[in-house]
Amino acid sequence: MGLSKIFVANRGEIAVRIIRAARELGIRTVQAVSAADGAMLAARLADETVAVGPAHATKSYLNKEAMVRAAVESGCDAVHPGYGFLSENAEFAEKVEAAGLVFIGPRPATIRAMGDKARARQEAMAAGVPTVPGSEGTVEGVEAAREAAAAIGYPVMIKAAAGGGGRGIRVARDEAELLQLIPQASAEAKAAFGDGGLYLERFIGRARHVEVQILGDGERAIHLFERECSLQRRRQKVWEEAPAACLSPEQRQALCASAVRLAERVAYRGAGTLEYLFDETTGEFFFIEMNTRIQVEHPVTEMVTGVDLVRWMIRIAGGEALTLAQDEVRLSGHAVEARICAEDPVADFRPSPGTVTGLELPGGMGVRFDTMLYPGYGVPPFYDSLLGKLVAHDETRGAAIARLARALGELRVEGLPTTRDLHLALAGDEAVRAGAFHTRWLEDWLAAHPLAPAAPSA
Amino acid sequence: MGLSKIFVANRGEIAVRIIRAARELGIRTVQAVSAADGAMLAARLADETVAVGPAHATKSYLNKEAMVRAAVESGCDAVHPGYGFLSENAEFAEKVEAAGLVFIGPRPATIRAMGDKARARQEAMAAGVPTVPGSEGTVEGVEAAREAAAAIGYPVMIKAAAGGGGRGIRVARDEAELLQLIPQASAEAKAAFGDGGLYLERFIGRARHVEVQILGDGERAIHLFERECSLQRRRQKVWEEAPAACLSPEQRQALCASAVRLAERVAYRGAGTLEYLFDETTGEFFFIEMNTRIQVEHPVTEMVTGVDLVRWMIRIAGGEALTLAQDEVRLSGHAVEARICAEDPVADFRPSPGTVTGLELPGGMGVRFDTMLYPGYGVPPFYDSLLGKLVAHDETRGAAIARLARALGELRVEGLPTTRDLHLALAGDEAVRAGAFHTRWLEDWLAAHPLAPAAPSA
Repeated sequence: MGLSKIFVANRGEIAVRIIRAARELGIRTVQAVSAADGAMLAARLADETVAVGPAHATKSYLNKEAMVRAAVESGCDAVHPGYGFLSENAEFAEKVEAAGLVFIGPRPATIRAMGDKARARQEAMAAGVPTVPGSEGTVEGVEAAREAAAAIGYPVMIKAAAGGGGRGIRVARDEAELLQLIPQASAEAKAAFGDGGLYLERFIGRARHVEVQILGDGERAIHLFERECSLQRRRQKVWEEAPAACLSPEQRQALCASAVRLAERVAYRGAGTLEYLFDETTGEFFFIEMNTRIQVEHPVTEMVTGVDLVRWMIRIAGGEALTLAQDEVRLSGHAVEARICAEDPVADFRPSPGTVTGLELPGGMGVRFDTMLYPGYGVPPFYDSLLGKLVAHDETRGAAIARLARALGELRVEGLPTTRDLHLALAGDEAVRAGAFHTRWLEDWLAAHPLAPAAPSA
Repeated sequence: MGLSKIFVANRGEIAVRIIRAARELGIRTVQAVSAADGAMLAARLADETVAVGPAHATKSYLNKEAMVRAAVESGCDAVHPGYGFLSENAEFAEKVEAAGLVFIGPRPATIRAMGDKARARQEAMAAGVPTVPGSEGTVEGVEAAREAAAAIGYPVMIKAAAGGGGRGIRVARDEAELLQLIPQASAEAKAAFGDGGLYLERFIGRARHVEVQILGDGERAIHLFERECSLQRRRQKVWEEAPAACLSPEQRQALCASAVRLAERVAYRGAGTLEYLFDETTGEFFFIEMNTRIQVEHPVTEMVTGVDLVRWMIRIAGGEALTLAQDEVRLSGHAVEARICAEDPVADFRPSPGTVTGLELPGGMGVRFDTMLYPGYGVPPFYDSLLGKLVAHDETRGAAIARLARALGELRVEGLPTTRDLHLALAGDEAVRAGAFHTRWLEDWLAAHPLAPAAPSA
């Protein structure tokens, strides 16, 4: 059938990404705009804009009814949810479909099944995908949690069934800590996600975070190899790569094949990511969760495969079959991505909204900067701090890091502190260059490497 | 051996390109700077700058002695000449070598042999590369020209042996015109190039311009497929692509193989381009000339092959062998490049230097903008009008053109007219989309499609 007008139910750099993909396909776009976002780049680039509510996200970008109404009234035939906000909200996807529009993503039932972390785990086990030893489904009450944890062995992770993106996770080192944390975690999960359900998993201390990119059309699924996102701060990814340098070709093959098995088991439609922990010492990998949406770090996969993921999401949603064969997806070189955020790395990463008084963007071969920035833009204080993703692609991992460092050196954002200098330091670090890190490495490194305040701009 | 410090004997966007490649290799750079260029982007990005003379190029970027002296005094061990200026000047390359520095390019003897168009033609014939029917070497005097033209058949092109880049070319439709043009062309060639030598070639009316990219290490040479640059205005390329959509796989194979034969015959070292005319009606191609340097349009080749040409130039000059095998160079998708110039397309392309009062750059997947622009930069009136090259890469030619149009729409240069809107119009033109053009097509199109003045910026 093909789509003719897409409602962009998101903001920031991912809204720009969606508008670009749509425009290249000849599809018009309508950008949702909160009261704080009238001047954002996506609003300037979209064909139309529609006001969807006040600055506070719960009243605009998280307001399902307002978003669906805006999509319908602006004559759209599809909704792209981006990441975050309503992207993994099954009820929103249902409302979109009930209004007669296409939801650019998986079926609501898939979002619901995979959004329940305990159920996703069961699906994974049924598909023969290794999972971290943990509770069978959610644990109901303190006593059930105590028994499950004793069987799993400490330390254990307490995870909100409705969480995601690193939110709602705690670690209990022993039973006393567990008994204290469970009621607290349940109350917080209920407040944050509207669902107090918890499950437990063995805590793997020096794990690496690897994840497999999936594309499916509801019948067939393929993988687009994996990413590594072990450099994290407070469980938020800071630096991502593709492929994962820590994997052998055999491990890569087994990991990616397991992801395709799970995706095909749930007849997955659209772009999705299966996240795993990889234990470098044993070579084991364990499925953690699935993100049923496009991810922030998808460009590193696009750079090493040449496949436009957001375009495929739109084409599949428009009724096309996934004509890309698995053996047509080939890895070429290595890509690294630095998340440039409005945060001050010398002030404990305090959010640093403000007006961009000067801007110079990097360029050249193998460099891509997906950003919401433009000169004079006022970064509002209400949302995520991500300003853009600077990606470098080259023949080898070492060359890609050198290229990233070169591009970071060219990037100048004046008017507000950013995390640029953190990435320059990381790109120059021996352990980063050697790929010798794990998911808690960056926190230790930050404690040991206080960053110097940035020099005042010329 | 490896180089440690490169003198950038050029300016503008190609100087930025060289600095980026050097930095990624861990090599320091010294940027040559005329009195008009202190604020240029390359001067901001280089590790060091050296003043080389007044604004007028003959006293700075074309001043061989001043350039070599600056390179020596700043402690460089190599010189990259870029394109234009001294890049194809054998005497300059000799002076660089005489000063004990490495010239990043071919041997001076190769530059000299290929720079003499008549001699290059003889080398091509010796290598079994088809050439346009024409005079054997230069024609001495009016009578020799008349005889040669009669043998070749009218219309004939009169070309300056020392010319290049489309300069110094005239067409004679009959003998009367020839007799009138020869003395005039000789005098002009002598004034422009210091050499009044002329040669004649059959004029092929509706030819397409195709060219093959070559890399050699002085022993072995490979091709990196071809580009098509038929969209020209006053013999200057305006829009370039890779690969050439007009070629069949067999024609591509024969064309590229012929280029490798000539490159290996002259034991070519570095990056070079063999230019051809392609007669679509007969499927014949004819060698015209070789450019013994990096070309403006090299990024389209980099986008479809993934090979960094400027990096290879530096590595080969540093003594490395060309370890890239011919069968490792593979075509992937299609790339199109729009030259964004400081020219006013609604005022007969009058040069439009001025200060960049506002700037927004395009980005996203498959888009590369190699530019000298930054906000606040004052484009000086003394040099070439090229501001940058906007390149789009995608799976097919049609998708690449759609992506280019999308990126052109995002580009905003305020403060001076540019050729952006010409490219937007070309990207939307049916004939361009169909690839139905030849080297004189654009001039006819421009006459038939007067561009509307740009709307005043918001």
